[in-house]
Amino acid sequence: RRAPGDIAGYLELHIEQGGLLDRAGIPIGVVLGIVGIRHWDVTVQGFSNHAGTTPMKGRRDALLVAARCIEAVNRIVTSVPGRQVGTVGRIQVEPGAYNVIPGKAVFGLELRELDDAKTLGFFRKIRTECERLAKAGGCTISFQETLASVPALTDPRIRRMIAAAAKDLGLVTMELPSGAGHDAQELARIGPVGMIFVPSKDGISHAPREYSSPGDIENGANVLLHTLLALDAG
Amino acid sequence: RRAPGDIAGYLELHIEQGGLLDRAGIPIGVVLGIVGIRHWDVTVQGFSNHAGTTPMKGRRDALLVAARCIEAVNRIVTSVPGRQVGTVGRIQVEPGAYNVIPGKAVFGLELRELDDAKTLGFFRKIRTECERLAKAGGCTISFQETLASVPALTDPRIRRMIAAAAKDLGLVTMELPSGAGHDAQELARIGPVGMIFVPSKDGISHAPREYSSPGDIENGANVLLHTLLALDAG
Repeated sequence: RRAPGDIAGYLELHIEQGGLLDRAGIPIGVVLGIVGIRHWDVTVQGFSNHAGTTPMKGRRDALLVAARCIEAVNRIVTSVPGRQVGTVGRIQVEPGAYNVIPGKAVFGLELRELDDAKTLGFFRKIRTECERLAKAGGCTISFQETLASVPALTDPRIRRMIAAAAKDLGLVTMELPSGAGHDAQELARIGPVGMIFVPSKDGISHAPREYSSPGDIENGANVLLHTLLALDAG
Repeated sequence: RRAPGDIAGYLELHIEQGGLLDRAGIPIGVVLGIVGIRHWDVTVQGFSNHAGTTPMKGRRDALLVAARCIEAVNRIVTSVPGRQVGTVGRIQVEPGAYNVIPGKAVFGLELRELDDAKTLGFFRKIRTECERLAKAGGCTISFQETLASVPALTDPRIRRMIAAAAKDLGLVTMELPSGAGHDAQELARIGPVGMIFVPSKDGISHAPREYSSPGDIENGANVLLHTLLALDAG
């Protein structure tokens, strides 16, 4: 088992999976860090009842409240500039029939951001707003954290080396976070890490249509080589 | 098999399942008819993508659009006075993971109303608004009808007989639709039908806590008897 200090540094070359480099036409991305990922199971508890005989007024519809919360997640996450993302990717409703007012809805909330304090700030806003929406809809709401992966920042010195290597090769760079997880985030526990991104067409990854041009791959390999040489010399 | 005209009339005594009589303290309900029920499967098609690497802008999130549509159903159905009800009781999301932007969401829409033309009017408004929301969210939306049960009106002459019988017994009445289905709606195909409602505590039905007081049941039985006598005499 490796201990902190056992490695002088770790470099990783990867395609950029958000399509940012591809759209901007920039050949090299200098990764600021790997975002933290936090998950919550959000449970809305209402009261299940006959959808035909129960008047609209006074319903305690857990799915209606969950729908408003899902909209609120999007609204709050996009309310300020930045690269934070917030996603509701799953939802389960009980009992789940056309003719029954949902008594319970559970949805999965994910937040990713390079700055964990910002993540927690978004979460507090979301929770407060969802609690307000639940109360207005005659429901209760609870949040259970199911994942808390903290951000892993890349080493500033290695970032400068990557940028300098790219500059020497005549390549424009862009600093950006990685929204996806990478090996570097684990290695960051025991030593300084750096990551180099190259464009991927339309940001597609882990799919047959994933494509990076030979020229972009060559650029990435050369930046990796020259950063490694600088790291070795330093 | 009975043919239209084979029966002189059909009377049904039932508890009122919406809690309206109970809350109003009115002992007898004269049922205007059994509401029509229409169901649709509503499919929102977006584009599934990595929830970490895909920026918020440009996402085609099928669940986010579905959430806005669910809110719109409630808003449109409650936008005018009346006893119409609209419910989204089920939803399925694909692929359905914390870390994947939903590419597809299918939800069940139910509308119930005594006037089928009004039901279809609400549906047209809902469809138009949902199409607008889908377009704004980079998704497409489609509606597939899965049930179309038309309303069954009770016979005006029998309604008058029920009201007269109640009046003779000194009982206050309220006219109201039935939001739930009943045997009367099938019999209405072959002859005139009438329905008498009595209060059910908190509108609870089909559950152990269903309760109607002996006095309310006696009132209902007497109104049934006297209406039957009037129908037989007429």
